[in-house]
Amino acid sequence: MKAPDLGIRIGRLEPGKRNSISDVKGVKVGHVTLIKGEGKLVPGKGPVRTGVTAILPHEGNIYKEKLLAGAFVMNGYSKPVGLVQVWELGTIETPIILTNTLSIGTAVEGLLDYVLEENEDIGVTTGSVNPIVLECNDSYLNDIRGRHVRREHVVEAIRNASEDFEEGAVGAGTGMSAFEFKGGIGSASRIVEVEGRKYTVGALVLTNFGKREDLTIAGVPVGLELRGYPGRGESGKGSIIMVVATDAPLTARQLNRLAKRAAVGLARTGGYAYNGSGDIALAFSTTNKIKHYEKEPIEIKAIPDSVISPLFKAAAEAVEEAIINSLLQARTMTGRDNRIRYALPKDELVRIMKKYGRLEP
Amino acid sequence: MKAPDLGIRIGRLEPGKRNSISDVKGVKVGHVTLIKGEGKLVPGKGPVRTGVTAILPHEGNIYKEKLLAGAFVMNGYSKPVGLVQVWELGTIETPIILTNTLSIGTAVEGLLDYVLEENEDIGVTTGSVNPIVLECNDSYLNDIRGRHVRREHVVEAIRNASEDFEEGAVGAGTGMSAFEFKGGIGSASRIVEVEGRKYTVGALVLTNFGKREDLTIAGVPVGLELRGYPGRGESGKGSIIMVVATDAPLTARQLNRLAKRAAVGLARTGGYAYNGSGDIALAFSTTNKIKHYEKEPIEIKAIPDSVISPLFKAAAEAVEEAIINSLLQARTMTGRDNRIRYALPKDELVRIMKKYGRLEP
Amino acid sequence: MKAPDLGIRIGRLEPGKRNSISDVKGVKVGHVTLIKGEGKLVPGKGPVRTGVTAILPHEGNIYKEKLLAGAFVMNGYSKPVGLVQVWELGTIETPIILTNTLSIGTAVEGLLDYVLEENEDIGVTTGSVNPIVLECNDSYLNDIRGRHVRREHVVEAIRNASEDFEEGAVGAGTGMSAFEFKGGIGSASRIVEVEGRKYTVGALVLTNFGKREDLTIAGVPVGLELRGYPGRGESGKGSIIMVVATDAPLTARQLNRLAKRAAVGLARTGGYAYNGSGDIALAFSTTNKIKHYEKEPIEIKAIPDSVISPLFKAAAEAVEEAIINSLLQARTMTGRDNRIRYALPKDELVRIMKKYGRLEP
Amino acid sequence: MKAPDLGIRIGRLEPGKRNSISDVKGVKVGHVTLIKGEGKLVPGKGPVRTGVTAILPHEGNIYKEKLLAGAFVMNGYSKPVGLVQVWELGTIETPIILTNTLSIGTAVEGLLDYVLEENEDIGVTTGSVNPIVLECNDSYLNDIRGRHVRREHVVEAIRNASEDFEEGAVGAGTGMSAFEFKGGIGSASRIVEVEGRKYTVGALVLTNFGKREDLTIAGVPVGLELRGYPGRGESGKGSIIMVVATDAPLTARQLNRLAKRAAVGLARTGGYAYNGSGDIALAFSTTNKIKHYEKEPIEIKAIPDSVISPLFKAAAEAVEEAIINSLLQARTMTGRDNRIRYALPKDELVRIMKKYGRLEP
Repeated sequence: MKAPDLGIRIGRLEPGKRNSISDVKGVKVGHVTLIKGEGKLVPGKGPVRTGVTAILPHEGNIYKEKLLAGAFVMNGYSKPVGLVQVWELGTIETPIILTNTLSIGTAVEGLLDYVLEENEDIGVTTGSVNPIVLECNDSYLNDIRGRHVRREHVVEAIRNASEDFEEGAVGAGTGMSAFEFKGGIGSASRIVEVEGRKYTVGALVLTNFGKREDLTIAGVPVGLELRGYPGRGESGKGSIIMVVATDAPLTARQLNRLAKRAAVGLARTGGYAYNGSGDIALAFSTTNKIKHYEKEPIEIKAIPDSVISPLFKAAAEAVEEAIINSLLQARTMTGRDNRIRYALPKDELVRIMKKYGRLEP
Repeated sequence: MKAPDLGIRIGRLEPGKRNSISDVKGVKVGHVTLIKGEGKLVPGKGPVRTGVTAILPHEGNIYKEKLLAGAFVMNGYSKPVGLVQVWELGTIETPIILTNTLSIGTAVEGLLDYVLEENEDIGVTTGSVNPIVLECNDSYLNDIRGRHVRREHVVEAIRNASEDFEEGAVGAGTGMSAFEFKGGIGSASRIVEVEGRKYTVGALVLTNFGKREDLTIAGVPVGLELRGYPGRGESGKGSIIMVVATDAPLTARQLNRLAKRAAVGLARTGGYAYNGSGDIALAFSTTNKIKHYEKEPIEIKAIPDSVISPLFKAAAEAVEEAIINSLLQARTMTGRDNRIRYALPKDELVRIMKKYGRLEP
Repeated sequence: MKAPDLGIRIGRLEPGKRNSISDVKGVKVGHVTLIKGEGKLVPGKGPVRTGVTAILPHEGNIYKEKLLAGAFVMNGYSKPVGLVQVWELGTIETPIILTNTLSIGTAVEGLLDYVLEENEDIGVTTGSVNPIVLECNDSYLNDIRGRHVRREHVVEAIRNASEDFEEGAVGAGTGMSAFEFKGGIGSASRIVEVEGRKYTVGALVLTNFGKREDLTIAGVPVGLELRGYPGRGESGKGSIIMVVATDAPLTARQLNRLAKRAAVGLARTGGYAYNGSGDIALAFSTTNKIKHYEKEPIEIKAIPDSVISPLFKAAAEAVEEAIINSLLQARTMTGRDNRIRYALPKDELVRIMKKYGRLEP
Repeated sequence: MKAPDLGIRIGRLEPGKRNSISDVKGVKVGHVTLIKGEGKLVPGKGPVRTGVTAILPHEGNIYKEKLLAGAFVMNGYSKPVGLVQVWELGTIETPIILTNTLSIGTAVEGLLDYVLEENEDIGVTTGSVNPIVLECNDSYLNDIRGRHVRREHVVEAIRNASEDFEEGAVGAGTGMSAFEFKGGIGSASRIVEVEGRKYTVGALVLTNFGKREDLTIAGVPVGLELRGYPGRGESGKGSIIMVVATDAPLTARQLNRLAKRAAVGLARTGGYAYNGSGDIALAFSTTNKIKHYEKEPIEIKAIPDSVISPLFKAAAEAVEEAIINSLLQARTMTGRDNRIRYALPKDELVRIMKKYGRLEP
């Protein structure tokens, strides 16, 4: 269930067919979800509430045909792998892996397993590769010290990737919390017209941030209204990963700009980028493919900055709704020490939205 | 009239005594407002709807006792003077001047007139000085090509500075537009408690951005509701300057972080940081004074980052309300070519806030 | 006299025809030199040893046909105007003006006089303009507090611009010092081959930095050898502006990279980017012209990053030699308080270069 | 053998007792060197020429007592882990691990093994940890695809750490090349006086960059002279990691500045930051220790920026000499496909230095 299914409209633009990042042609998402054990935390043993999510930016060999990309750090209490090279070269050249904070090493390992197998030239006749791994800390529910993600899980998540994929408490989102509710994976998209041409902007987020009272849905202070709802605890320490994809032709510089607008969507849901929250946005465009072995001058297709604003709006809206969708799609999860993160209660939500004039009473 | 006067609450924290940036002890603000002529634009002649606003960060000699500062560029379609040195040295050493885009040269000149007079050593026995000038484009109402601001106006704005100052269509805000209403100068403050200590965070904004339909007040889509209200035109091209002051002890690095949270407040009012909008935030702390001629090791007082989040929230809230206050305090203004920017209609606003459950019906 | 005229070779690449930034087709440079009075400094009265230098990036209307550009701040103790927008939009849209630190306001004014006259639409039917003004502090020789540069001088420097232009103690370089010798304007160029295509990289610098003992020419510790040469005083407080032009097709991101290599050239001459030195590099490419009113998708021509290294080397070498050329071309200048900055003594230089095996004995 | 042992003086400042990063009290370095097999490359099997180097910033628990730190990216064709959080929070909280590019995942894993064991609270009652891992690509000599580094090696390198440590072809430097000679680990230090107080600045580098003809030692074009010396091949693709330590009291902002001066030292050895070179500098100060659980306001000791320049010079010199020392200390190494990287020939070097007037003939 996504926001529109409840009649809740985030922003003014129309979503794409799936209302998902995979509305951007070629983008696929795969998960591996790890749930095992329950009860008291025994560090290293469990309970396990974690996983891996892989985003494939296009259907070909991404190392051989790189995509232009940009990134923005809204708050850098975070351990992203790969951003320094994205800023320098303006490209991504691997799938994007999301997982828990202490599994970034394993995720790099697994991602390399996949990429090295696909590209026998890496490290032999050509240079190295820049793995992209982004993370949030799921230790509220998960035995994060156990580092239960294995390299094979990463490869499996990549192999699982599909245009149709689950959201909520799956993959990297399995153990994540948002606004002291159950968070996780959420996605949304927007169709936007720029000077007569239609483009799609899709977002996928991994939500793990926010204090309960900050939660805002379409401007309504839902979190304040639900202050008394059970399941509170350890707020404001999480993080959010926001991935924005588009088929609009944009340069790396423009994609840095687009990534920054993810922070607009984040702010509107109640995100303050608290100190302990690693809030990272990565944006890529599927239009220009940069060939690994190209040596001749190339032509990069791009819209002029003077007409880019609709894409900024689309990115902000898609991220805002993706965050809300991560809440709407996540089911209640019990984790370590019998801590419970409840799913955002739909009936309460509808009641509150009506109270604030957003749904017909 | 500020938001609380209408019963509108922005965020959850309490404002300071004046609900103004001058709640931060020592901070003062002065304006010079230039209004002259009417009717058809004759470039270079008028009509004039512009001015200067000066923010004094403390009451002493700012060059001799610099304050730690940081800055954030949410969107760099902007012509700020002085930020490169702020990022390098982490200090401000002059009053902060706001004016129109084409008057930044004059504003630098006027600011130098003031600073050089106060400091006879500059350029003779000591180095130079880093003037801070920030701007928005008021050409919708103002004959901006006429560059009607004079150096004397800048000095006068500094001399005018007081803890009590006007907001709305005054000073640099005279000709500015926000959400296709009349914008300008707005201010607000928040008191926040960090580990038992109370700090004040104040914001002053110069608003000149936004499409009508984007205007959001306390989460309510006021702009959408007022789409049909007269006075629309030339939206999405403006800018916003956001100055955040605090008495909390923060390092320059932390003030860069604080400045970034201004973007959270901006986003919540409906700011998307459109391409043509120069969205700049500058933050300073009044606690540590860095002496110009100091050569011995110093001790910089700072709160640990682990407890900084309440200040982030306060900055976001203060900026959000300051933006709304700039609208609430601005009066309707007719400018070049008889263009009219209407004041945000208070009765309509109250009606809409009630409709959306934010005010008692 | 430039380095090759003395038989001194900086780097390995060949210079262009003029060994000047104007080897990049379309680039022109103009100066206004202000020299007046002598003897004791009377702040506001003189002596005057200052000026303005203008770099025209192409021969057309730069506002209507912008060039892609990037910038790098090696040390931000500097007051550049315009860089924030360069980083955001990746373009320059005006001539580049160099002058003294306290004249940046006037320089903005003069540059606007020029640009507004050329473009009647600015501020009337289109947006504003981003003036580029860069500076060094010439107060060792000049009555900088007097702000003797006038707006007309800026326009005049632009109108003076030519492919053939003087170097040394002219224009903005009139009062500048480098390594406690007379510095000022220097230029050099390099021809480089990238995958069979020839490109030109030109540099123009405004030198005003360095301690005597740091001066290094082609690796030779010339400054150490000349420690005892007269004219020392007030070192390490200056700055350097480095402008790099090329006809190689590069994106804005790539031009940020190119600008960074100016710092390599700087380091090799003995630049440490001391605290008080504002070391700024700006790079632009003349290949892609971005039309102001364009709304359709464009094609940006660019070489792949994988073959860009020769351009990096060329930029470093051109900047390194341009710095040396600024010394070689500057004549001895007496300024305020009868302070003398001597021209680098050519005979001594030749002697030292021979001693260190760089010239035939 | 280090530069001074040959009578070669890099810069003007005095080295510390060991002429090593460990002259900064508390800093220790440990290696694990992996050499196995020879002959033809069989990807995944060998030959193995790689390793791990660990830098311990102080002797206590680094997570519980963090150090202020900064970083600079001279060229971001690199896969550093941990820099985003260094920039945000201004601290390091783990040992610094250096290894080969494809082993960064394993290095993160091994570093976490160590840190999690030392800190049972991480992921249970407190947040996560930011592992610092930096890399170069040793695939010229090493079977990098084999990822022969194991987690245990990382822990072992940390446990091995000592004030006395080897340089050259050891640890992470085992398979690295510099200027088409054998590179690897190098270190140097400088003692500097700031307003009557003595401070130490130490550098440790991992060199893996440079074209033969670019090699410059104390300004002498050694590489040009040795163009014909055997062992050339695959130049300009490597990288360099530069770690700068100091006991001078500096803020995180100032340490970002200090890190930038590493690029000055790099440039002077012939570094151009070619496209394929990931040139990363990390700087930390041992003076201020930031306690993990501190919640009260702290006092950060720092020297004023106005007196910081001697430290900039010291950092540049220490890095410059550390690079040269990495060459002088490395022994000839044969690796994959019988490729040979020769040690820089000392006799040739002495001959060349004499020719260029740097050593007594």
